[in-house]
Amino acid sequence: MALLYKSDPVRGERWKALFAEHAPDIEWRAWPDIGDPSEIDYLAAWLAPDDLEQLLPNLKVLFAVSAGVDQLDLARLPADLPVVRLLDPGITQGMCEYATWAVLSLHRDMLRYRQQQTARCWQAHRLQPAANRRVGVMGLGAQAQQILATLAPLGFALSGWARSAHQLPGVTCYAGEAQLSAFLGQCDILLCVLPLTEQTQGILNSRLFDQLPQGAGLINMGRGGHLVEEDLLGALSSGQLSGAVLDVLQQEPAPAEHPFWGHPQILMTPHIAAMTQPDSAFGVLLGNIRRFQRGERMVGEVDRGKGY
Amino acid sequence: MALLYKSDPVRGERWKALFAEHAPDIEWRAWPDIGDPSEIDYLAAWLAPDDLEQLLPNLKVLFAVSAGVDQLDLARLPADLPVVRLLDPGITQGMCEYATWAVLSLHRDMLRYRQQQTARCWQAHRLQPAANRRVGVMGLGAQAQQILATLAPLGFALSGWARSAHQLPGVTCYAGEAQLSAFLGQCDILLCVLPLTEQTQGILNSRLFDQLPQGAGLINMGRGGHLVEEDLLGALSSGQLSGAVLDVLQQEPAPAEHPFWGHPQILMTPHIAAMTQPDSAFGVLLGNIRRFQRGERMVGEVDRGKGY
Repeated sequence: MALLYKSDPVRGERWKALFAEHAPDIEWRAWPDIGDPSEIDYLAAWLAPDDLEQLLPNLKVLFAVSAGVDQLDLARLPADLPVVRLLDPGITQGMCEYATWAVLSLHRDMLRYRQQQTARCWQAHRLQPAANRRVGVMGLGAQAQQILATLAPLGFALSGWARSAHQLPGVTCYAGEAQLSAFLGQCDILLCVLPLTEQTQGILNSRLFDQLPQGAGLINMGRGGHLVEEDLLGALSSGQLSGAVLDVLQQEPAPAEHPFWGHPQILMTPHIAAMTQPDSAFGVLLGNIRRFQRGERMVGEVDRGKGY
Repeated sequence: MALLYKSDPVRGERWKALFAEHAPDIEWRAWPDIGDPSEIDYLAAWLAPDDLEQLLPNLKVLFAVSAGVDQLDLARLPADLPVVRLLDPGITQGMCEYATWAVLSLHRDMLRYRQQQTARCWQAHRLQPAANRRVGVMGLGAQAQQILATLAPLGFALSGWARSAHQLPGVTCYAGEAQLSAFLGQCDILLCVLPLTEQTQGILNSRLFDQLPQGAGLINMGRGGHLVEEDLLGALSSGQLSGAVLDVLQQEPAPAEHPFWGHPQILMTPHIAAMTQPDSAFGVLLGNIRRFQRGERMVGEVDRGKGY
């Protein structure tokens, strides 16, 4: 019984040590040193190799090393192969930290103060109490719920939107297409943590921006595919949006000529909101292997129909 | 009975409306329209006028419109005149928001990512779990305690230092000169919210920086007078400090030629961490006037000996 790892090699060394210490019955192999392919039961990967069925004939589970699985072409994977997201508490913590930082950056006008520092201009602007600032989160999964719980003590007026109905304490919840417009109409700051699916591809576009209050701020911590990048430039130049904090882009790494780099109203980070941390993720991955071995349902199994 | 207001005229209009609505027995006057000086019982001011005793012969209380009173020359004020700080919950909330944003900015390497955006460089760096990040707060007054309470749920390892001994849940507290070095030795991020007094003037200097772990970050939300600015430049260029977030400077507004403006390792904002908000501060100020009228002790009375 072996597990094949195919992702960042530096973190791979830490994964290897954790398996050696806590699960010596599971042999650790790192891509591309596969050894005898027929011995491999589990694949832990960011991207799946091509021809998975031929390459690993006895593969039993594909463990994504990420919370999202949009980077995997689910249609090309064997239909009966369980695909499992990695719900690492370290990822959730990273997302909460980044979301808090990004919301405060927009709430406290930090893009404008960044410009003023460059221009050597010392000028204070009016401060809005958090209670008057309406923060709306798109997506209400486990991560989004933790983000909302982290923002709550700061006093923001919180709302959320998802495909299906939710009930969360202290959060006004909206559901489905029918309530999207009502949700958007009351978001001073819109934060996207949706999964990327066919339905959510390009959802952050001009039509959506036009339904936000004028001068709203945008945070994208989902995937680059959620945002129609030209539409953001248009909304910023018309004043419909006042600023954006983006951790993900259509093309990563962003090319040097990308117009977002030099844009004074865009704060851009290189997909660093959260990273899988072997130390916090190991227990989750091993727990799922043990569940599978006992014939139990794993945590984070992907619904192929929904795509997450 | 009249109150003379001498501070920002825009917020003055809001103060005036609040007094007219909720305390019509107290006549509101705005500097420089003093009217009959003998009728003025209370002065609410950022800076006191010169010759206060001659100018307002019947003055009973000086209410600062700020949490700190270092801008007032206490020695020049009549010795028996009560001086009262304004402990506005709106100020505290602003300080908590700014502190959270500044700590997260240093914790999540945002100064480096700001440089990378300017350089059009897409590169992620290792992420440190919050539990491994030791945040130390200098000053343990009401504001500092709220800041620590706001940082706690983010998972940082918290400590604090003040002149006198404190006990705070979840915060390792250090006291006095004797424990300053031990406190500094374990601060990855040092946040200053001390009051500015003779003892704390210039406390953020090379000698202090040298006792921090190498590569520590600095946040100054106290007063510009706490920081020896040349020493910060030295500590950044030697690598003893990795970055600084500053909301206050020795000279405000900072002149255009100030070396901090263009420094890639300094994030500078124009004294905006918190501003007195008439709506949240009015109840506090009026409450103190009523206490004084009843002969009770006011909240925030300054101890002239300590200077705060």
